[in-house]
Amino acid sequence: MLQQRSSFATFGGRTAFYSHFSDRCKTEMNFAIYLPPQAQTTSVPVLYFLSGLTCTDENFMIKAGAQRIAAELGIILVAPDTSPRGEGIPDCADQWDFGMGASFYVDAVQEPWRSHYQMYSYITQELPEVVATSFPVLRSNSGQPIQSICGHSMGGHGALVCALRNPTLYRSVSAFAPIVAPMQCAWGEKALTGYLGPDRQLWQNYDATELVQRSTHPALILIDQGLEDSFLVNQLKPDLFEAACRRSEQALLLRQHPNYDHSYYFISSFIEDHLRHHHLFLSNYS
Amino acid sequence: MLQQRSSFATFGGRTAFYSHFSDRCKTEMNFAIYLPPQAQTTSVPVLYFLSGLTCTDENFMIKAGAQRIAAELGIILVAPDTSPRGEGIPDCADQWDFGMGASFYVDAVQEPWRSHYQMYSYITQELPEVVATSFPVLRSNSGQPIQSICGHSMGGHGALVCALRNPTLYRSVSAFAPIVAPMQCAWGEKALTGYLGPDRQLWQNYDATELVQRSTHPALILIDQGLEDSFLVNQLKPDLFEAACRRSEQALLLRQHPNYDHSYYFISSFIEDHLRHHHLFLSNYS
Repeated sequence: MLQQRSSFATFGGRTAFYSHFSDRCKTEMNFAIYLPPQAQTTSVPVLYFLSGLTCTDENFMIKAGAQRIAAELGIILVAPDTSPRGEGIPDCADQWDFGMGASFYVDAVQEPWRSHYQMYSYITQELPEVVATSFPVLRSNSGQPIQSICGHSMGGHGALVCALRNPTLYRSVSAFAPIVAPMQCAWGEKALTGYLGPDRQLWQNYDATELVQRSTHPALILIDQGLEDSFLVNQLKPDLFEAACRRSEQALLLRQHPNYDHSYYFISSFIEDHLRHHHLFLSNYS
Repeated sequence: MLQQRSSFATFGGRTAFYSHFSDRCKTEMNFAIYLPPQAQTTSVPVLYFLSGLTCTDENFMIKAGAQRIAAELGIILVAPDTSPRGEGIPDCADQWDFGMGASFYVDAVQEPWRSHYQMYSYITQELPEVVATSFPVLRSNSGQPIQSICGHSMGGHGALVCALRNPTLYRSVSAFAPIVAPMQCAWGEKALTGYLGPDRQLWQNYDATELVQRSTHPALILIDQGLEDSFLVNQLKPDLFEAACRRSEQALLLRQHPNYDHSYYFISSFIEDHLRHHHLFLSNYS
């Protein structure tokens, strides 16, 4: 049962914030949605946006300026929360890069995380079904929601992992400043150890640089990266993903932008390109 | 002396946050500025945006999505803070509609406000000179900065007052959901009493509905108002200003939008129209 928490007219459509009980995460989960004007009369495709560390379901809708383009193109935007949260949900209150707001979009197997931190299943399976049954989401002839996925930083990692593991669920994938190789950076090693335990074999299911060497995505992957991003060298390392894509012949457009940092000022500057890129694939209904 | 607090590449230009010592407000003041790509090589006009109650210099730059259009048109954006603030500055900590974040852009005459709350002089005189000497602001043949002004709610009130009292300083003025008649609403009566004292004669200098009956502005005034704005009936009352404009033959375009509320989702939906409207007047350099 969806509960609408708030709704705001935006570019002829509306930006709304919902919560619902998640069977996977066994708690109330929040998400934001933008319904473009076209959704008042017809079914339209949907783009998921996964946010970065410390974000909630709000940041993207407030800061990215994506609604304007979604209104033009007729795309529903969905921004899930970055983790389960609230009373009774495990957290590390003193850490911003692990626990609440930092799920890394994995299905945790370690205690105390595994009962609620099931974000990978939530994002790829439960939430798309909730969204597609509650809102006018276009479906393919086989009944599958027509959807793509994008994300920022930790959410860029999440988007790449979701799409590479489910190339038929997502028509296209793009990312802003993604963590492309969590097995090879401090943020990722901390998170994967905490949620998955020491077996690095398991980690490979959540590492885009590993995944793309096993299985590619049919659409060109678009990645934008700011060259003044303070996390570029130690955490993001797009060159690792670029090399892996080259080895496995995954089509990739990695754009590197002088002067830009890791912020939403960066995202807002290039979000239009991402929506137009996804629109190419989302509007091919065959 | 300007001090840059931060700077973020945005749409080929940069969004930056500065502070400087204000002689008028006798304290450090913050403002935000967007420098479009054109400002790297040439002087360009400037649009001031005055924010509403409880805002700082940040809200507009983070939420409105204005930089994209300013980058296209070649306009500097400046978002001043909504009041002096910090240690030693008078405030009513338990009130969000008076004191810090709620200057109403007046020159206070009452104690304890008058020593620091000189926002009208700061906005119309001191800050434009600071901005025009520190950044590549286009000037007219007579040396005056080429500038316009816009605002939201309390800032819409401020923008209308600044422009109606200084029709030669500002080429055009527009507002989102402005407080157009502070002498006739609770927010305004509280603020004007507090900052100016009981003499309602003085208040008329800060009431757009009064001012427009004394002196008009040469440019068409553009106002956007959401019809689901919860402050519409009791605080904003655009019909009072509309009637006054009709009486004094002030050109006004008051657009009333079903479904829209008082939020930045509303502002972001229509900010492009405002920038393009101002651009008409800012690009007439005669």
